[in-house]
Amino acid sequence: MTRFLDLNCDLGESYGVYHYGADAEMMPLITSANIACGAHAGDPATMRRSVRAALEHGVAMGAHVGLPDRWGFGRREIPTSAGELYDLCLAQLGALDAFVRAAGARLRHLKLHGSLYVMANRDPDLATATCRAVLDFDSSLTVYALPGSALAEATGAAGLRLVGEYFADRPYTGTEVQMYRRSAEDLGTPEQAAARTLAALAGPEFAALGGIGTVCVHSDTVEAPRYLRVLRQHLATAGFSPRAPGQTPATPDTGLRASALPAS
Amino acid sequence: MTRFLDLNCDLGESYGVYHYGADAEMMPLITSANIACGAHAGDPATMRRSVRAALEHGVAMGAHVGLPDRWGFGRREIPTSAGELYDLCLAQLGALDAFVRAAGARLRHLKLHGSLYVMANRDPDLATATCRAVLDFDSSLTVYALPGSALAEATGAAGLRLVGEYFADRPYTGTEVQMYRRSAEDLGTPEQAAARTLAALAGPEFAALGGIGTVCVHSDTVEAPRYLRVLRQHLATAGFSPRAPGQTPATPDTGLRASALPAS
Amino acid sequence: MTRFLDLNCDLGESYGVYHYGADAEMMPLITSANIACGAHAGDPATMRRSVRAALEHGVAMGAHVGLPDRWGFGRREIPTSAGELYDLCLAQLGALDAFVRAAGARLRHLKLHGSLYVMANRDPDLATATCRAVLDFDSSLTVYALPGSALAEATGAAGLRLVGEYFADRPYTGTEVQMYRRSAEDLGTPEQAAARTLAALAGPEFAALGGIGTVCVHSDTVEAPRYLRVLRQHLATAGFSPRAPGQTPATPDTGLRASALPAS
Amino acid sequence: MTRFLDLNCDLGESYGVYHYGADAEMMPLITSANIACGAHAGDPATMRRSVRAALEHGVAMGAHVGLPDRWGFGRREIPTSAGELYDLCLAQLGALDAFVRAAGARLRHLKLHGSLYVMANRDPDLATATCRAVLDFDSSLTVYALPGSALAEATGAAGLRLVGEYFADRPYTGTEVQMYRRSAEDLGTPEQAAARTLAALAGPEFAALGGIGTVCVHSDTVEAPRYLRVLRQHLATAGFSPRAPGQTPATPDTGLRASALPAS
Repeated sequence: MTRFLDLNCDLGESYGVYHYGADAEMMPLITSANIACGAHAGDPATMRRSVRAALEHGVAMGAHVGLPDRWGFGRREIPTSAGELYDLCLAQLGALDAFVRAAGARLRHLKLHGSLYVMANRDPDLATATCRAVLDFDSSLTVYALPGSALAEATGAAGLRLVGEYFADRPYTGTEVQMYRRSAEDLGTPEQAAARTLAALAGPEFAALGGIGTVCVHSDTVEAPRYLRVLRQHLATAGFSPRAPGQTPATPDTGLRASALPAS
Repeated sequence: MTRFLDLNCDLGESYGVYHYGADAEMMPLITSANIACGAHAGDPATMRRSVRAALEHGVAMGAHVGLPDRWGFGRREIPTSAGELYDLCLAQLGALDAFVRAAGARLRHLKLHGSLYVMANRDPDLATATCRAVLDFDSSLTVYALPGSALAEATGAAGLRLVGEYFADRPYTGTEVQMYRRSAEDLGTPEQAAARTLAALAGPEFAALGGIGTVCVHSDTVEAPRYLRVLRQHLATAGFSPRAPGQTPATPDTGLRASALPAS
Repeated sequence: MTRFLDLNCDLGESYGVYHYGADAEMMPLITSANIACGAHAGDPATMRRSVRAALEHGVAMGAHVGLPDRWGFGRREIPTSAGELYDLCLAQLGALDAFVRAAGARLRHLKLHGSLYVMANRDPDLATATCRAVLDFDSSLTVYALPGSALAEATGAAGLRLVGEYFADRPYTGTEVQMYRRSAEDLGTPEQAAARTLAALAGPEFAALGGIGTVCVHSDTVEAPRYLRVLRQHLATAGFSPRAPGQTPATPDTGLRASALPAS
Repeated sequence: MTRFLDLNCDLGESYGVYHYGADAEMMPLITSANIACGAHAGDPATMRRSVRAALEHGVAMGAHVGLPDRWGFGRREIPTSAGELYDLCLAQLGALDAFVRAAGARLRHLKLHGSLYVMANRDPDLATATCRAVLDFDSSLTVYALPGSALAEATGAAGLRLVGEYFADRPYTGTEVQMYRRSAEDLGTPEQAAARTLAALAGPEFAALGGIGTVCVHSDTVEAPRYLRVLRQHLATAGFSPRAPGQTPATPDTGLRASALPAS
């Protein structure tokens, strides 16, 4: 029996002359793209190009909401209140969604970025603020969260759709992911990543989610595309087929739509 | 016979600790608010507060799209391509609209800010790019433009709803407005502003628009609220009643909705 | 016998169109100005104008080094390493000093701003990094610090000149200042501030510094100029005469020098 | 007879996580580094690292002053007054100089970046403002300018030292350089660049400067290090030896000094 697994990647993090991440190589290999919304990274032109590219590859699109901290790339834990996080989510969801709507497509999910992800998965107030923003903006959006986290709990309590996330290219200590370590040694081989991922998906936390999971591989990891290709092969061997959450083979987010957006 | 006239004001231009403009005093006196979208001015919290305040006063809301140039407040003519302007419009329309949607209300119009306003009213390519962004985002939005301008023409060609704008608190040379002069002398008295406004609205350029006009008074003009109050009296004496474009007395944008947004 | 007391104020925090603080009214009432360096607040034109104004009033000038966080005004505790703080100090000392040098004058001190002040007064590594930056830049500069703090200790250990600071317009809990509370109630009357200040200056922590102290009144406090005027009268009655640290009545930083800098 | 020729490169343009330019590969091949000052590009940490690297390779250091326009990388012609340019020069000269001073070394020159370079070489008022800033900051600094330009003329009129610049990796139309074209075709081969450079240095405009010239190769040109290596060989064959303006073989800017700055 085929099981489906979402493969997501953080993308659209270039800024002006600064190119960042292997977006073009990753896009054909993933099922969901978390697109930066111009706060921690990205800018309006990069959002448009990322939406076009996602549509060309039939990749589901989500808002990758981060702190407005370009210098720190959204990775520094800047004290943020629940009200501030609510505002950040709305402004960034809206900015990205404008490009998605202009292309005639639909935004599918929210994934917080960097320190916002860490803080909202840990802090119930921030988790609730995130979910309130999603509810107020579009209650059909899926929220990506760590299984068993405050954010996962708040998502359920809000009646929003939850997908549990596993980070294939980050080391874990027990069930706790180490977000910012990224040496080749930390990374492990794709074989090891596949083994870790399959074990995690079979574990109690993901089981509690009915096996609804997503696996993240970062676009700025060393040799990310090669890494993801090998990982995909191992997941396929284990019986997983890549598919975005809630999508069917006859997904409406096809490549034809991309042409609705200006190319340059 | 009562004629209706929109009174609009640029608002929401505070930023962090920096307070700007007499927003609170202007809001009860206007019918449309052009709310900054976090590029030339404003930030997510200020957008939320501005949307709340507009709803509390039954004021129609529009996106005040500007250059991402906080230091220059969007007033410097930074070379901008049609593609860049399209992207700026989408990102900013979306960011503001998220707060409007979250409040259960609807965005009503687009008004470009500062040098973008000047450039798009002058340059047909920029005018077309603006209209394409509006079409792709929400074709029910009204576009504010100078009567007879490239932007007015493009708005008509795009089939979008157009409102012709007159600047009550800026001096004109013939039909050309001097956007950045704002000495008390340039301003004239409210009586003079009312006389100029009435003459302009009766002139051929506004007549060509079927008399559909809007009058702008800036929130950062010296003694703006007092100025606008006197101006309103003179316009009332001349038979004009304030009303946002397309709104009826039973407008759905009532104050009840404001409570949907967090207050702080 | 006359004792001398420095009266300092954070200034130069305007940015572009955003005016901030009662700089013009405060300048004649203080002996030292802490001028923002374009990171948490200020910009090149504001630095130039602030240096001119300080020279016109014979006010000693220091760099008010803050986090590059305009939105948060440098008040949010953004995680900052010792190396990052060293770099921030150098870049900002240099930027402000260029205007001071261009006017033919000399920079006198460093005062960290907002959360950097709090963090470096608390954390020995950050305190040491601050002092290393001052040593490497100009070892004749005075460092403003809380008496008994990590920063005061590091300043002494580095052989730099230290001035102990008391905040007249902030409430204290024991010897700990509450930096960000600023309601009228927190503030107290100028009489109460004078009494608190005199008591603190007579206390053991300032005594350990040989009575070398500075008193801060913020430019953005409600009615700051009136407040400072009354405070000055009370301090004068108690025998204190205002003077910047290390300055003599024949200070070289006279107003004549201001004309060396362009006025606009 | 050996003639000396400066080889300069724009460096230090990375920002936060964004890596830009082949700095490490270019540094051993050049004699002067134009280091970004945190406005159009760069940041405090990048300034420190760039100063360290320049000192390690005995490369002379100059301030690469640009518009505070990170998104446009300082390439967009943002309207800038003479007063604004004066302020920009001072703030950025000071910021970079702080790192140079901390290392016990000396800043050697100013080279404007991008659109500021274009504008100040064209406009006499902007050229004069640039020179006034250099005079007020450190009159021993050399100014890089296009031979025959308004900036070259103002530099001479101000009594400042001038070096005429030729762009080896940019196409020329007559004597006018096309700054922003950078396709492989525009670039030409290193052999062609060497031939163009030698012809220009022998031409009347450089002759008028007494042959005091500098040749720029950009760090972000395709295969810049290889390109520069071949160019160096051709210039050597033609009798040119690389040396920074005004330096002798016993230059004081040796690598020993680099250790004065923290490495991380």
